[in-house]
This record gives sequence, C-alpha cells and structure tokens, in this order.
Amino acid sequence: VEADVSGEPDKFLDRAVAAIDAVRAGGPRVHCLTNSVAQNFTANVLLACGAIPSMTVSPDEVAGFTAAADALLVNLGTLDADRRAAMRASLGIALAAGKPVVLDPVMCHLSPPRLAFARQLLAAGPLILKANAAETRALGDIATACRVETGPVDRISSPALSRRVENGHTLMHSVIAMGCALGALIAALAARADDPGVAALAGLVWFGVAGEIAGLEAGGPGSFAVAFLDALANTDSATIRQKAKLT
Amino acid sequence: VEADVSGEPDKFLDRAVAAIDAVRAGGPRVHCLTNSVAQNFTANVLLACGAIPSMTVSPDEVAGFTAAADALLVNLGTLDADRRAAMRASLGIALAAGKPVVLDPVMCHLSPPRLAFARQLLAAGPLILKANAAETRALGDIATACRVETGPVDRISSPALSRRVENGHTLMHSVIAMGCALGALIAALAARADDPGVAALAGLVWFGVAGEIAGLEAGGPGSFAVAFLDALANTDSATIRQKAKLT
Amino acid sequence: VEADVSGEPDKFLDRAVAAIDAVRAGGPRVHCLTNSVAQNFTANVLLACGAIPSMTVSPDEVAGFTAAADALLVNLGTLDADRRAAMRASLGIALAAGKPVVLDPVMCHLSPPRLAFARQLLAAGPLILKANAAETRALGDIATACRVETGPVDRISSPALSRRVENGHTLMHSVIAMGCALGALIAALAARADDPGVAALAGLVWFGVAGEIAGLEAGGPGSFAVAFLDALANTDSATIRQKAKLT
Repeated sequence: VEADVSGEPDKFLDRAVAAIDAVRAGGPRVHCLTNSVAQNFTANVLLACGAIPSMTVSPDEVAGFTAAADALLVNLGTLDADRRAAMRASLGIALAAGKPVVLDPVMCHLSPPRLAFARQLLAAGPLILKANAAETRALGDIATACRVETGPVDRISSPALSRRVENGHTLMHSVIAMGCALGALIAALAARADDPGVAALAGLVWFGVAGEIAGLEAGGPGSFAVAFLDALANTDSATIRQKAKLT
Repeated sequence: VEADVSGEPDKFLDRAVAAIDAVRAGGPRVHCLTNSVAQNFTANVLLACGAIPSMTVSPDEVAGFTAAADALLVNLGTLDADRRAAMRASLGIALAAGKPVVLDPVMCHLSPPRLAFARQLLAAGPLILKANAAETRALGDIATACRVETGPVDRISSPALSRRVENGHTLMHSVIAMGCALGALIAALAARADDPGVAALAGLVWFGVAGEIAGLEAGGPGSFAVAFLDALANTDSATIRQKAKLT
Repeated sequence: VEADVSGEPDKFLDRAVAAIDAVRAGGPRVHCLTNSVAQNFTANVLLACGAIPSMTVSPDEVAGFTAAADALLVNLGTLDADRRAAMRASLGIALAAGKPVVLDPVMCHLSPPRLAFARQLLAAGPLILKANAAETRALGDIATACRVETGPVDRISSPALSRRVENGHTLMHSVIAMGCALGALIAALAARADDPGVAALAGLVWFGVAGEIAGLEAGGPGSFAVAFLDALANTDSATIRQKAKLT
C-alpha cells in the first residue's frame, strides 16, 4: 500500500510523513482568507493538526497577519469586495516573501466574476491549486506550482511528482467545509515541506486516513465531524503512512 | 398519532413523507442568504438531509447561485447592506423563475429597519413565512404562500392545509441556529413538495422527530447538536411518519 | 481549594457562585459584537449557560439589540469597517445605560490599526478587559473596570479583588474561539454580579472546571468541544465551587 507503481517504497510518501511530523512539532501559522461558512471548522482542523490559524479578511488588517504567517490560504467561497481586496493585498505580500499560497476556487464554475478573479490570482505567481473536476475544467490550462484535483480519486501533479490518492470516507461529503479545511491544511504543510506536491500528498493522506478512522465509529455526519477532528489530532504518522493508498 | 382531527389517515402527512423521500433521493440545491452565525450549521443540516447548500451573500455573486438553485432561503439575521442588496436580487430571480422562497424574519421585532425590510420582501411575492409568535405579531397580517409559526406548538396555515405539530425536544432551544436551519430545510422540501404547506409540515416533523431521537441519547446541548445531525440523516421516513404528532 | 491565601473561605467565590446561579436562573441577554469565526461557538456557550445571545454586527442594526441587552461583548477578531462603526455605536449606548461591557482585543499585538482601535475603546469608559499576556503588554497601562489576563494561570485584578485561577485543561487550546466565548460568558455574568471582578472570577472557574470535566471523557479536540458544552450546562454550582483552584 505504501509503494508507487513500480512496487518500490515511495520516497515522496516518506517526505510527506516528515512534513506531517514537522507541522505537529512546529506549529506553522496559516493566514486563512476563507469563506464565512468554513472559518470555524477550518480553524479547528488547523488546531487539531498542530498549526496556528488566523482568519481576518478585512483589507485594513491582513498585512500584519500575512507578514506573521508561514503560509496563506485563499479560498473564494462567499467572495465579496472586501475579500477580493484582502486577497490581492495578502497574495502580494506572501509571494514577495516566498511563502506558499494555496488557492481554492470554490464553485467558480457557477459564478463568472469568481472565475475571472481566480484567473487573475493564478496569473500573479505560482500557487498551489486545489479544485474539483468542475472547477478545474472551468479554469482551463493555467500554470501552477502544483495542481490538486479532488474527487472520488484525488490527483496531484507538480513538477516533482504525480500521484493518485484513494483514501477517504463517504461521510466526508456530508460535512460542510471539509474540502475548504483541506486547503488550509495543505498550506500548513507547504510551510514545512520541501516541495508543494509533497505538501499536497501529505494533506490528502492525513485527511483521508483520518476520515477512514472516523468513519469506523461515526453514526452519521454529526458524530463523523467530531471523530474526524479527534482522528486528525490522534493518528500517528506511522499509521497514516501505513494506511496511505497511493498509485 | 398520524391522524387528523377526524381520526382518519392524514393525506397531507403522506405527501410530506413523500417530499422527505424526494429530498433524500434528489438533492435539491438551496441557496441560503442567511446570517453568519447560522451558516455552518444550516449547511450541515442540509447536507445531512440530502440537499445541496450554497451560502454566498455577496450581491455580485448571488445571481449565478440563485439561478442554479431549486429554492431560496432568506434569513434576516445579521442583516447588513450587502445582505439586503443580495436578498433583493435573489428574490427577484427566484420569484420570476417560480422557485419557492422561505423568509425567516429573525428577531424583526427588536429592530425597526429589519421589520420594514421584511415587509418589503413579503410584498414582492408569495413567500413561505417562518416566524415565531413575537415576529409574527410585529409583521401583522400580510399575504403569504404559507405561514409557519414556531413555538411550543408549531402551527402551519396555507390555502391547502392547517395543522399543529407537537414534535420536538427541549434541548433544541439550547443550540443556536436550530430555527434558522429549519427554514433552510423547509426551502429544500418546498422544491420537492406539491404544496408549500406540505413542505412546512414535512420540515417540522422531520426536525421534531430527529430532535426527539437525539434527545434520548444526548447528555447536554453539545452532544445534542451532534446526535441531531445524525438523526436527521438516519431516521427513515416510516419512523418520522409514525412519530409525527399532528392535530 | 476554596480558600484565599489566608486559608479562610473566599467571600468572592461565594459571590461568583451566586452570579453563576443567577445567570442560569435569569437568562441575561448579551449582545455580542464578535468575530465571524467565533460567532457560532460563542452563541452556543451562552445558550449552554442559560444566557440569551444576539450577534448582529451591522451598524444599522445594533442600536435596538444593544438597548435590549443586559451586557455587551466587544471582540476585535476579524475587525472591519462595519464592525468598528457598530462597536462605537453599541459602546456608547451600553455605557450610557450603565451596562457592563467586556473588551477582548484579540491579537491586537499583530495589527497596529487594531491596537489603536482597542485603545480608543478603552478610553471611552470603564470596560472589563480580557486579554492574554501579549495583548496586555501591547496595550500597556490603561484604566479598566477589571483586568483579566488569561494564560497558564489566569489573573484577575479589579478595585475589589485580586485572584489567580488555575483551572482548565490543555485541550482548551485546541478548540478555536474558546477564549472569545469566555469573554461573552463574563459579560453575561457581569449583568448579574455585584462587581466586575466577581463576574470575571465566576467566568474563569465555570469555564475551567467545565474544561476539566470535559477533559476526563474527551478523546481529542472534536469530542472535547462537545463535552465542554455539555459540562457548562450540567455542572452544578456546588461542584464548580468545590473544584475552583484559586489563590
């Protein structure tokens, strides 16, 4: 299960597990420009994983928080004028300082202004793009630092690696903001990983394995969300490594 | 328990149960213009019930989401200038397309501008009004597609039916946004029901029975909210039908 | 455990316990101008404790809600232009009416405009200041009605009393908005206590003891947050009194 297509041990999985351990040990700060629906759960996911969230979306305030952060999440849910201004400001600061940035263009295929804005952000510099198939199709072929396409099977492609991840649990689709929180976790990992693709791989297996463990005891979507936060915090990286399903 | 005052089987309850099954089977999209406190729980309630939420409140963005939705929720909590503009835009789109709209005029009796705005919205077309006694009193006698008055006993009155529902659990009052989420569920059901009153009836019994089941195992308001989401997802419609307390 | 440094019974703890009982009996209304991340959890904490939250942050709407409230929370997380305007308006109304106000200057040490705004608010009248060590240092020596400094040991100093509280559980740091919700609870207690320092003492022991009880059964941060809300609601004031660790 922890081998790549050649049957050999997967060096990228080793590096992903190292990034997980580093997040837990080091508490990277992630500034999250994210939608109002996902803010609370996203912050709780980051705390459960050992990272430190800040969540301000006011254009007047993001400079200090972005400067103090190790990574930036830009999530386009509940996008409004203030969020757009804050995203432009934070993105400039983060890219200039060489900090990793994750872009989640939530439902951009349903809203033309959101799609246009996502393209502007991607043109500003090399971002880690986390999107589902419909969002990816709408965006088209745009340069990124790393591309994560979520779906029944998650796909990562970066200059360094290309992998498919098959971990996860069906109840993950019945809890709001699960994908949004994954983007924040990938940002935290990118602050500690040696490659954006490794960070994406680490985030997908950490999330997917925690989901599988939570699914064993959950009785429905409410108890699943609770057990999922516990599993993110409690599952050791050896277990995550062992349960990772990569091809 | 499943009979109307005449002691005969309740045809409207049959139709309400059919709407519950249809929401679970069909995943109607509900665009929710709702307050920032309730957004996360409301989305989780819709997902637990099989519906698909979208939550954007930005005036620039609501057109696409409303056009893609099967029903609209307009909840006046944390009302602000952006929300008012988004509500006017979405309401026009939804009514023109014949989509059902639920209005929840949260605490309009405590804020004169909110009360005035609620009246403007109700004048725009036939809405499903879900309000408690104080809010209903403040609004006065205004034409609606259906009127749901929540309280110790919930009351539904529409051109098609008039019912009292006595399901529920006392811990429902110790979890924030419970009533707000009910409004969203009624909107989802209205996209699948053959009458607004039937949708309201379905929402009240689904919520109330899930509350009763959650109350059996909950140890307080925290565990109640978790068990409630599980019960919404897990309670089959035959059980809901059997436990419905209507007069 | 319930003695002050002199080894005598602590009269202030008696008064704190009386305030806890009064909140549970009386349902004080707390208007919360708080950050978007904390709104939902804060409202659930207040409901679990018997208080009644309102959460609107729109400048057009806060007058009515503040006038109807028994206490005001001003929390500077996710501060923006609307929140600043609402805070100025609500603070004026609350102070003029003699209602207690709690200020939580969240992360003001990371954002100069937030720090300047916190100082302006503190200059407007005697507020209960709840802050951690970094925030307290950034603010410097400013007059308050009562000062609560949270940390590994919490410290209260007011004209009436000076105490250190050592209750709590390590998982409280893994749930977002825990400190924000504490500020709201102190506001609720201040509406029923005979002194701001007594309200702060009551809030710290109620929170800390509930955290200890939740920690006994929690398996991680997800289940801790759930058990914490249950413990806030269920722990009787005699138990809180008995488990309080004061010096």
